[in-house]
Amino acid sequence: MAKSAIGIDLGGTNLKGVILNPDGSSRHLTRVPTEAEKGGQKVLENILLLIRKLLEKEGTSDTINGVGIGSPGFIGSDGVVIGGAENLPGWKGMQVFAPIKERFGLNATAGNDVTVAALAESRFGAGRGVDNVVCLALGTGIGGGIVINGNLYTGSYGMAGEVGHIVVQTDGIPCKCGQKGCAEQYASATGIANMARNLCKQTDQDTPFVQFIRNNPEMVSSKDVYDHVELGDPVAIEVHQQSMAMLARLCGILCNAFAPDRIILGGGVLEAGHIIIEEVNKTIGEHCWEAISERCTIVRAELGEHAGVLGSAQLVFEDKITQE
Amino acid sequence: MAKSAIGIDLGGTNLKGVILNPDGSSRHLTRVPTEAEKGGQKVLENILLLIRKLLEKEGTSDTINGVGIGSPGFIGSDGVVIGGAENLPGWKGMQVFAPIKERFGLNATAGNDVTVAALAESRFGAGRGVDNVVCLALGTGIGGGIVINGNLYTGSYGMAGEVGHIVVQTDGIPCKCGQKGCAEQYASATGIANMARNLCKQTDQDTPFVQFIRNNPEMVSSKDVYDHVELGDPVAIEVHQQSMAMLARLCGILCNAFAPDRIILGGGVLEAGHIIIEEVNKTIGEHCWEAISERCTIVRAELGEHAGVLGSAQLVFEDKITQE
Repeated sequence: MAKSAIGIDLGGTNLKGVILNPDGSSRHLTRVPTEAEKGGQKVLENILLLIRKLLEKEGTSDTINGVGIGSPGFIGSDGVVIGGAENLPGWKGMQVFAPIKERFGLNATAGNDVTVAALAESRFGAGRGVDNVVCLALGTGIGGGIVINGNLYTGSYGMAGEVGHIVVQTDGIPCKCGQKGCAEQYASATGIANMARNLCKQTDQDTPFVQFIRNNPEMVSSKDVYDHVELGDPVAIEVHQQSMAMLARLCGILCNAFAPDRIILGGGVLEAGHIIIEEVNKTIGEHCWEAISERCTIVRAELGEHAGVLGSAQLVFEDKITQE
Repeated sequence: MAKSAIGIDLGGTNLKGVILNPDGSSRHLTRVPTEAEKGGQKVLENILLLIRKLLEKEGTSDTINGVGIGSPGFIGSDGVVIGGAENLPGWKGMQVFAPIKERFGLNATAGNDVTVAALAESRFGAGRGVDNVVCLALGTGIGGGIVINGNLYTGSYGMAGEVGHIVVQTDGIPCKCGQKGCAEQYASATGIANMARNLCKQTDQDTPFVQFIRNNPEMVSSKDVYDHVELGDPVAIEVHQQSMAMLARLCGILCNAFAPDRIILGGGVLEAGHIIIEEVNKTIGEHCWEAISERCTIVRAELGEHAGVLGSAQLVFEDKITQE
């Protein structure tokens, strides 16, 4: 019988684990706290704890092919954390694969969290049935995952898809990366909240949303914006439209570069749902070669918070990791 | 013995043909006039004439595996010209593959001219030895060819790599595509000549280049600009720097999207040579995630005008066309 794979999704608050069958069905979804604040060694111990819990539920490790880990930043093919995970102090430099092999006799592989989510959407979610897909995760920043000719594309060093740092406004808002006008300054959760604060400072209108922001200037989130969009607040709608115009520019650039069959939008910001998808679909034709946008659909991610853990497990099958 | 392939490069003035061996060596380079102004049927007859000449030089068609055609615009997999070749009146709608099969018993395949040039550079030129390459052809416009994981990537409809229409200047120079600020408005041969005309209108300086432009406002070319750059003319140098700043923005966007190992610059504009490569390499780090640009080299195309005909022939091997 074909073996299954363990997937681990390394989040800032929780570690999520699951066992995935080759046919896409899964079992034993399990969570343990990440305890990121206690340092890299503790995070690794919690990963090992989660694997042990999954194997206990499974009753054996004989049915398991390997372990896939989806993580912020990059883990090298040798199992050492290379970096790019600012929310996990002491995580950089950790050797992740060796202790999994030693403790459980299982080989491990790893991918960036957005990349593995793109793999899951391509196989089991909004990218099913097409070959070329770009996934955007609109969260604190904007991450990108790319599937080309049916396979994950990460570039020679795992760095392809830095789409949040594509410039969409010349001489726009300064970004921590050193450029100005990066897409994530406008259309990430953080970017939308900042746009809301700025617009409320400038506007003469006195709507419920403007009052809300003035009372909660530091606490405002993209969810607050979309809650007020739902209520028809004109200033919130203007923030939404300005942000989505920038997202449409980014999607247009990605169309001209990749000519994908679908662009899949996911991440926390998309909890506002269909309104974002509609807005971007409406305007993307203005931002790229129209013959391309006519053949590309903007769709919402389907797997929600499970994309990461399913994609991490799927990585085991696609990297063709096998136990020695 | 492994068979060879015929490559045909369909240019506006000449058709070029060659016979390519699987090991990359070639023979019998031959040219015939395209006679584009006489319409699509005449162009097709000239393609058939060129194939006949090549087979006469070869002495047999038994050594030939198939015919690959590199053409502006798109030819569908059924052999019908889909469009996008404005310089070839009456070419759209022509059936190209069937007459080649009928006359010579050879199967045919086709690719966009910039795409097949990228394939050639990847196999025999400036992209040898790496997996991920973006090629830019700086001519009348800017075309893009993409090699990913060692294979040509053209998207599901052959449209990937419309990089000339990626916006690099918000609300910039209007483009015929309907957008404003497309890269090809600044860094194509046409774009550079336009920038030169505009700058010479505005400048207070009275350099030899300014006088040259004033005397030849309609005739100026990117070559004129680079001839005066060579002579140290400060206004010509300013045009060069402004254009290359825009090209660096485009290359930065492509780095963030693809994280390629190399970006290969070719086309007529590059006849000015190393100065363009140097300028873009110097500034690209400002226009993308620096960890990516540090791992990506900007290089000059190596195959010059032969890239198209070699890539067209190579397409025969890689599309695995075989005679029935």
